[in-house]
Amino acid sequence: MIRRDGRRPDELRALEISIGAAPYAEGSALIVCGNTRVLCAASVEASVPGWLRGQGRGWVSGEYALLPRATLTRNRRERNGAGGRTHEIQRLIGRALRAAVDLPALGERLITIDCDVLQADGGTRTAAITGGYVALALACRRLVEQGTLARSPLVRGVAAVSAGVVGGELLLDLDYGEDSGADMDCNLVMTDAGEIVELQGTAEGEPVPRARLDALIDLAAGGITQLLAAQQAALG
Amino acid sequence: MIRRDGRRPDELRALEISIGAAPYAEGSALIVCGNTRVLCAASVEASVPGWLRGQGRGWVSGEYALLPRATLTRNRRERNGAGGRTHEIQRLIGRALRAAVDLPALGERLITIDCDVLQADGGTRTAAITGGYVALALACRRLVEQGTLARSPLVRGVAAVSAGVVGGELLLDLDYGEDSGADMDCNLVMTDAGEIVELQGTAEGEPVPRARLDALIDLAAGGITQLLAAQQAALG
Amino acid sequence: MIRRDGRRPDELRALEISIGAAPYAEGSALIVCGNTRVLCAASVEASVPGWLRGQGRGWVSGEYALLPRATLTRNRRERNGAGGRTHEIQRLIGRALRAAVDLPALGERLITIDCDVLQADGGTRTAAITGGYVALALACRRLVEQGTLARSPLVRGVAAVSAGVVGGELLLDLDYGEDSGADMDCNLVMTDAGEIVELQGTAEGEPVPRARLDALIDLAAGGITQLLAAQQAALG
Amino acid sequence: MIRRDGRRPDELRALEISIGAAPYAEGSALIVCGNTRVLCAASVEASVPGWLRGQGRGWVSGEYALLPRATLTRNRRERNGAGGRTHEIQRLIGRALRAAVDLPALGERLITIDCDVLQADGGTRTAAITGGYVALALACRRLVEQGTLARSPLVRGVAAVSAGVVGGELLLDLDYGEDSGADMDCNLVMTDAGEIVELQGTAEGEPVPRARLDALIDLAAGGITQLLAAQQAALG
Amino acid sequence: MIRRDGRRPDELRALEISIGAAPYAEGSALIVCGNTRVLCAASVEASVPGWLRGQGRGWVSGEYALLPRATLTRNRRERNGAGGRTHEIQRLIGRALRAAVDLPALGERLITIDCDVLQADGGTRTAAITGGYVALALACRRLVEQGTLARSPLVRGVAAVSAGVVGGELLLDLDYGEDSGADMDCNLVMTDAGEIVELQGTAEGEPVPRARLDALIDLAAGGITQLLAAQQAALG
Amino acid sequence: MIRRDGRRPDELRALEISIGAAPYAEGSALIVCGNTRVLCAASVEASVPGWLRGQGRGWVSGEYALLPRATLTRNRRERNGAGGRTHEIQRLIGRALRAAVDLPALGERLITIDCDVLQADGGTRTAAITGGYVALALACRRLVEQGTLARSPLVRGVAAVSAGVVGGELLLDLDYGEDSGADMDCNLVMTDAGEIVELQGTAEGEPVPRARLDALIDLAAGGITQLLAAQQAALG
Repeated sequence: MIRRDGRRPDELRALEISIGAAPYAEGSALIVCGNTRVLCAASVEASVPGWLRGQGRGWVSGEYALLPRATLTRNRRERNGAGGRTHEIQRLIGRALRAAVDLPALGERLITIDCDVLQADGGTRTAAITGGYVALALACRRLVEQGTLARSPLVRGVAAVSAGVVGGELLLDLDYGEDSGADMDCNLVMTDAGEIVELQGTAEGEPVPRARLDALIDLAAGGITQLLAAQQAALG
Repeated sequence: MIRRDGRRPDELRALEISIGAAPYAEGSALIVCGNTRVLCAASVEASVPGWLRGQGRGWVSGEYALLPRATLTRNRRERNGAGGRTHEIQRLIGRALRAAVDLPALGERLITIDCDVLQADGGTRTAAITGGYVALALACRRLVEQGTLARSPLVRGVAAVSAGVVGGELLLDLDYGEDSGADMDCNLVMTDAGEIVELQGTAEGEPVPRARLDALIDLAAGGITQLLAAQQAALG
Repeated sequence: MIRRDGRRPDELRALEISIGAAPYAEGSALIVCGNTRVLCAASVEASVPGWLRGQGRGWVSGEYALLPRATLTRNRRERNGAGGRTHEIQRLIGRALRAAVDLPALGERLITIDCDVLQADGGTRTAAITGGYVALALACRRLVEQGTLARSPLVRGVAAVSAGVVGGELLLDLDYGEDSGADMDCNLVMTDAGEIVELQGTAEGEPVPRARLDALIDLAAGGITQLLAAQQAALG
Repeated sequence: MIRRDGRRPDELRALEISIGAAPYAEGSALIVCGNTRVLCAASVEASVPGWLRGQGRGWVSGEYALLPRATLTRNRRERNGAGGRTHEIQRLIGRALRAAVDLPALGERLITIDCDVLQADGGTRTAAITGGYVALALACRRLVEQGTLARSPLVRGVAAVSAGVVGGELLLDLDYGEDSGADMDCNLVMTDAGEIVELQGTAEGEPVPRARLDALIDLAAGGITQLLAAQQAALG
Repeated sequence: MIRRDGRRPDELRALEISIGAAPYAEGSALIVCGNTRVLCAASVEASVPGWLRGQGRGWVSGEYALLPRATLTRNRRERNGAGGRTHEIQRLIGRALRAAVDLPALGERLITIDCDVLQADGGTRTAAITGGYVALALACRRLVEQGTLARSPLVRGVAAVSAGVVGGELLLDLDYGEDSGADMDCNLVMTDAGEIVELQGTAEGEPVPRARLDALIDLAAGGITQLLAAQQAALG
Repeated sequence: MIRRDGRRPDELRALEISIGAAPYAEGSALIVCGNTRVLCAASVEASVPGWLRGQGRGWVSGEYALLPRATLTRNRRERNGAGGRTHEIQRLIGRALRAAVDLPALGERLITIDCDVLQADGGTRTAAITGGYVALALACRRLVEQGTLARSPLVRGVAAVSAGVVGGELLLDLDYGEDSGADMDCNLVMTDAGEIVELQGTAEGEPVPRARLDALIDLAAGGITQLLAAQQAALG
């Protein structure tokens, strides 16, 4: 089967990760997955949120927003509180990227990863994690270069991708059109040791048999290997 | 291995589901899982949210809140907007329970499932889904009894439970103490046909190998069989 | 005259107060007045609001909310700020219960009384005060049992009830149906010494002569005697 | 006993009501009670709030605010939602002034009475009611003069005043200093037929015997007679 | 040409500035410009906002609000956040009045100038600046009289006025009717040395040639001379 | 005098305007002025805000936001309401760009110009206007190409730039470092006919003589000529 954009079922979209896209940030990356583009910027602050103070550990949190015209029709700025979808995505980004960091080794520091979607064609949350990791890694590298930390608190690579069942086919890295028609959508966050950080599988229409979910995880795991390689290439 | 409360690793907490707990609601259930107690109430409205109007389909949405003293120390009422955790749980409840309903058969009606946690000892979101299903089923039954619908739009049973890895052991239906120390926590929503509606697996500490996640899904699936039976018993 | 539910004009609704309904709270009570059910939980914190700091006095404040299906039709959660009715009731609960406590003897501690209405059939604010008193008394008792305070700061009993003029009749402890049709509604908060803490009398329709208000106060005072006895029975 | 400002215990503060203070409003009055000054403006709109539509009745609602320097030290503008005290006062103003109007005769119109406190020396809520009545009466008169209504929907006079127990003395029309030290504070809203619209009596310190409350009501009723006369004089 | 209210093109509206209008404030003035009336009150606090702490400098900020019936039809209170127009005006008032003060000489103190518009007939922001200056000057004088400061931190006089192009004519001090039909509206803030603090010129309809703007500035500068004299007269 | 970045006093920063930066928008441009980068996207909707309905006229409004790491240190997302600076800038953008459009010719359509600052090194509001004009022009062109309008409602070119007095020197197009130390900052919005749309001149420190402001306007007008040419080049 050939997909609308000419990809094979197990093929990622054209991928580019370029660093330094937000020059004032402690680390930043622009990730482009087909028509999805996310600007990821890491900010390091020398203190942690109140509930964590005095425990000698750091924290990594994620923020996520769509520019109003990232989407086909204009979406409104969330100026009266972020909506449920935004909250859900932000929490996912934070959990995924904390898995990459030895928080006690980070010390009482907060790293915020801002993921601003410039263009949204599906897979923005997984692109935010994959690109956000690069921004995070650069910020950690800088903490070492500046002499703030003796060694990087980064302990492993982390990347994410989606896979889904569309019209009975298992497809990797869904674009917006595919995602809208998917029966099941699965987002996988995995490490460079092939271990699972987070898996979210959601049947949008009919529930799916266990075996289908297993096959989706396999498909996604294959994509993550390529994403991890692209991250390392970008990080030089 | 024996757990702090005397359970075997694959044993659910003491479970009780009683119907009619919110007498004014179109359907309601109080679910008790050990020390976790959630009051679930279904409200039927004869119109759907604006974005869905005119499509001939209904909708099911979930709301979730903790009473201030559901928790060991007082948690503040979310009167300036619900927080991220609440949004995330509400969206999960909605997706899980929509899987139980033939939305076109429901017609342009909104069923809201309010899940108010009276006491919280872990597993409140899965208890909300399992209890919320009973409230939803009663509301659907009532639509038929009142003659509003010719047949119930309920198409399958849905229940949810957690499982996790704690101190290297795989445990079913974690309480708060177990959940706090878990390396991986997994929430599974499954149907009475053994198919998956949603799976969320999150490594809280170290990432876990794929095989561990598979074992957790098996463990949770076993618990769901018992929860589905308890739902049917409550529904008489 | 016999009321719709079979009560005499000067008869309270069936009353039950059970303690321990919110096991994690420092004191709690579930009060049932006919079909009105309110869960009251007292939380003790070892500091007072900023405006009171350094004065050596404690504070008691009340919070009040309806569960969405406490009412015949669903009422929305107040997540964008509490409404006027909620504010008015919360302030009344706080004033009423502060009258029961020697605030300097409490020391710089805040006791919050959360009153969550599980079912609302009229008289929720007076039930919240009567039940909230029991939760408060239990929390005070615990401060002594724990050795935090040498003696209880509780200085008197406080209870509340409504009375109203309905169709020309004076009725005690109005249910929702009676309250909706009342010409005057009066809420009385009184001590176990028969003194007045607060009186709110409101003509909903036509203004009423002074003598009518006097008779309503007498009627309410009679009901409070029984409520105070029930509180003491619950407190053992 | 002579009060700090030279008044007898049963004497009102120097009172002035002048009309037309907000020339663009459909009716307006500036009420001055000693050092308390409240600008009251009535606005007539040709539609009612959604929940009242189609019932052929009008509505009267009150809004209340303090200018930041109405008070001895600056109070902050309530730009993130009105506080509890404001809500409580607004609701009282609305209830009190609705008692003066035949709402079906008003037709589906909303009259909003804005009460902005220019200077606050105690008794602002009762001054707002007494002055607000004059603004309301002028707006009703105008509806008749314009030919919108055949006869005024105003059916009775309404005024309000406070009385309290201070240092064992019963005092009429408390100023801020007296109010701060009062054991009981009572606000009475009464009609020109001597009937009660609303009574709120609150023991700020010790609870008070019933007889004291009765005496306060008598005292306040005496003051209201004078306030009603002043309203009529202002209305010409 | 004669204007609707009989003024010459270069004539200010009838002007009155009276001090002490908010007796509890550290300084206050009521400014009346034709039918525009603004109550300006200065509040002195002994600390500065967090971002300014520890720099040995003070701050002057402005707040602005319309009473609901300052306008021909009722405008709603901004209780869910101030709107854009309010923010813009508040920032202008603050900048304009800070130019009058030697901030280091003020020390770490905050002076807030509350400008509440009692009646709005155009030119409220410039009236707020001109009247706010008088309130500010009185507050500074009081800091000296109380011995808090050895000399007044006030370093110059500041006043503001509007001018505009209406129907091809250049007019000083526009009222609401003129302002609504203006092609260009210009607000000038100037010192008693004839220097410019702020100039805002906005073409509401067609853009205007540079020479027109120059002429408007000349016209406004003439008006400011008179306003500065009226301020000094009011300050005695 | 040579500026820190090597520019002459009357020299613009390196300028680039590229179109199509937000491919889903009806018109878009990325404007780069030195280190300031603003993404401008125009969205066309077929209806106008409520207050404008039925008048046969369209509207153009601006929205403005900084990405969190557009700035040297992270700035927080404005999720609880936009701040005063944002409101002020948004209103300026809207006024400036409405001057370019024949609103009746646009018909009852709303064009929103979203200006999201990717990097902020001073002059973001003027860059937003200059770049926003290009996005607006492209959206107008598209309305004609689609056949929605017979001719473009765009009636003139509009661009904006800042100029200021820094250390006694008059400088064009201030960067952040220059702006922070400026005595006067002036933003000029001008048309391609050399007419003024808006002028905002603000003395940040000492007030300035009229002649200085005049010289700043001359300087800014010179820069605008170049900006208008760059816009036309980008629009092809």
